[in-house]
Amino acid sequence: MLIGGLPNGAAPIAFYPRVLGHEGSGYVREVGAGVTVAKKGDPVLLSFAFCKSCASCDAGFNSHCNTFNELNFGTQPNVFGAKDDNGSNPSIPGAFFGQSSFASLSIVRECSVVNASSLVSSKEELQLLSPLGCGVQTGAGTVINVAKAEESDIVCVLGLGGVGLSAIMGAKIQNARRIIGVDRVASRLELAKEMGATHVIDSSKLAEGQTLVDAVREAAEGLGPTVTVDTTGVPALIKASIDFARNRGKIIQVGSAPFDFKLDLTVFDFMVRGLQYIGAIEGQAFPVDFVPKMVQWRKEGKFPVDKMMKLMPADKFEEALHEMHDGTTIKPILCW
Amino acid sequence: MLIGGLPNGAAPIAFYPRVLGHEGSGYVREVGAGVTVAKKGDPVLLSFAFCKSCASCDAGFNSHCNTFNELNFGTQPNVFGAKDDNGSNPSIPGAFFGQSSFASLSIVRECSVVNASSLVSSKEELQLLSPLGCGVQTGAGTVINVAKAEESDIVCVLGLGGVGLSAIMGAKIQNARRIIGVDRVASRLELAKEMGATHVIDSSKLAEGQTLVDAVREAAEGLGPTVTVDTTGVPALIKASIDFARNRGKIIQVGSAPFDFKLDLTVFDFMVRGLQYIGAIEGQAFPVDFVPKMVQWRKEGKFPVDKMMKLMPADKFEEALHEMHDGTTIKPILCW
Repeated sequence: MLIGGLPNGAAPIAFYPRVLGHEGSGYVREVGAGVTVAKKGDPVLLSFAFCKSCASCDAGFNSHCNTFNELNFGTQPNVFGAKDDNGSNPSIPGAFFGQSSFASLSIVRECSVVNASSLVSSKEELQLLSPLGCGVQTGAGTVINVAKAEESDIVCVLGLGGVGLSAIMGAKIQNARRIIGVDRVASRLELAKEMGATHVIDSSKLAEGQTLVDAVREAAEGLGPTVTVDTTGVPALIKASIDFARNRGKIIQVGSAPFDFKLDLTVFDFMVRGLQYIGAIEGQAFPVDFVPKMVQWRKEGKFPVDKMMKLMPADKFEEALHEMHDGTTIKPILCW
Repeated sequence: MLIGGLPNGAAPIAFYPRVLGHEGSGYVREVGAGVTVAKKGDPVLLSFAFCKSCASCDAGFNSHCNTFNELNFGTQPNVFGAKDDNGSNPSIPGAFFGQSSFASLSIVRECSVVNASSLVSSKEELQLLSPLGCGVQTGAGTVINVAKAEESDIVCVLGLGGVGLSAIMGAKIQNARRIIGVDRVASRLELAKEMGATHVIDSSKLAEGQTLVDAVREAAEGLGPTVTVDTTGVPALIKASIDFARNRGKIIQVGSAPFDFKLDLTVFDFMVRGLQYIGAIEGQAFPVDFVPKMVQWRKEGKFPVDKMMKLMPADKFEEALHEMHDGTTIKPILCW
């Protein structure tokens, strides 16, 4: 058990006991003094926490808040009560990703709240939109806010989970002229096509002698994509994304690589090719602005987020995990 | 001797015989059929070569032309004539950096020519402005075109040779709120201050126990620069530039690192900090547009490029080299 800080090099979420859970939504039970974002009874979508006062927040880049790790992956003790076997009350931290919403009640900071009163018309719709404040804004925001993709771009997305499919939708919103999805689960590739991909590559079924670099280049005019979004964090794929990039290509790192993984960049080659390797959290979105935009696109039929969601009762969480792992479900949403 | 291509991993300019030389200027002696950029007698400034027809050129990024290496560092045989000891005529390649201008006559492609008829009023002024088409546009263009620095930026420049001092001038043009110059030659640091640096750091005289990372951070509000331009290619400095960057900082690679140097980036940390590592050639400038802009800024007294130039007779080239190495002269210009 570790409370109060992260050891050097440690995975920032792997310590217990604590309550995890993010991409939450719900109805406000109570608000603290001075809170204006929502009132009792309002439906709200939850997002990450930020400090509102550091240089990054001042510059409008709250997802790179100077205290992002502490606020979202650190520990806020004594949020949840419990009794251990000896009858004492151990401290059980909350506020994971600003919310610890794998629970029927959450205590959150005002900054993590997007008021959904004007966005949803039912409890089911509120539940369905829960992932907008994290995975969906991460994928779509990366293409829209970070890459600033345009019609001239060829966007390649590595990994077609919730974040990757949202990146596909973001590329479609930007009218990118080619959108390439890469995964090794056939059903996800099909879904990517439905959601906007113009090309898909099954990385588990490359032709004899063909590498992923060859396959992506081939789908991108032989020159490679102008924008690549890695949502996998898999070292071999990150390396490939550097290799297959077009001159001046942007490679945006969104997936969490192993905490100690170091990417070797051959500096001279990288420079001559004019490559751009960019780290991004949460699509550099400001949730209060970006979530309503996505909801509007969905209403207009341009952002088919529902295709990847599945509402499931909270007590079926193990089943939800299995369905995610085997590819049956992209985004199970646990409901109370 | 190697003609016709580059071996894998080889330094792209280290093969002989050939005529080197860049940042050339002169008066046109003769033009080929169909040339419209200049006519006989026109003063011209020379710049790099590009193909005008690849995807990078089409997108307006000629300095990342898909054939940049071949056109600028490859070999165009039989440009210069010579007789060897046996009386035969070996092929002596030209077109280094589009020009091979360490010679009294050059043969260049039209794309490498900036017509200076309306830019200069004397031969001396033409000579003085020769470096605008390479080193100066590289430094200033990196800050202006690549970093797109703004008043809110804190720009740090590593290495204060011709490229670095031009980056300082570019940052001043953009009104960056802090401009930090780093070098280990006192006279260059003084010059940087005259040209716009608000802070300078002598990396050879750090306080006891202080690292360069500490010193740059200290000069940048404790948080690090928002933009760093490395003009040195020195591995230790490139590594430091990643370490001292502010969250969302851009680190732009302009100096040529050793050809086999690999930069290790810890991907997770890089991502969470939202860093941006960007390679750039020639400040991603289109010379025909960017050189006249710089000339105009110079006329307005905002771009004191003359401070780093020194005209020297061509036969004093060894002296020029010594003065560059010991720091006496930033930019010797060899004149015929």
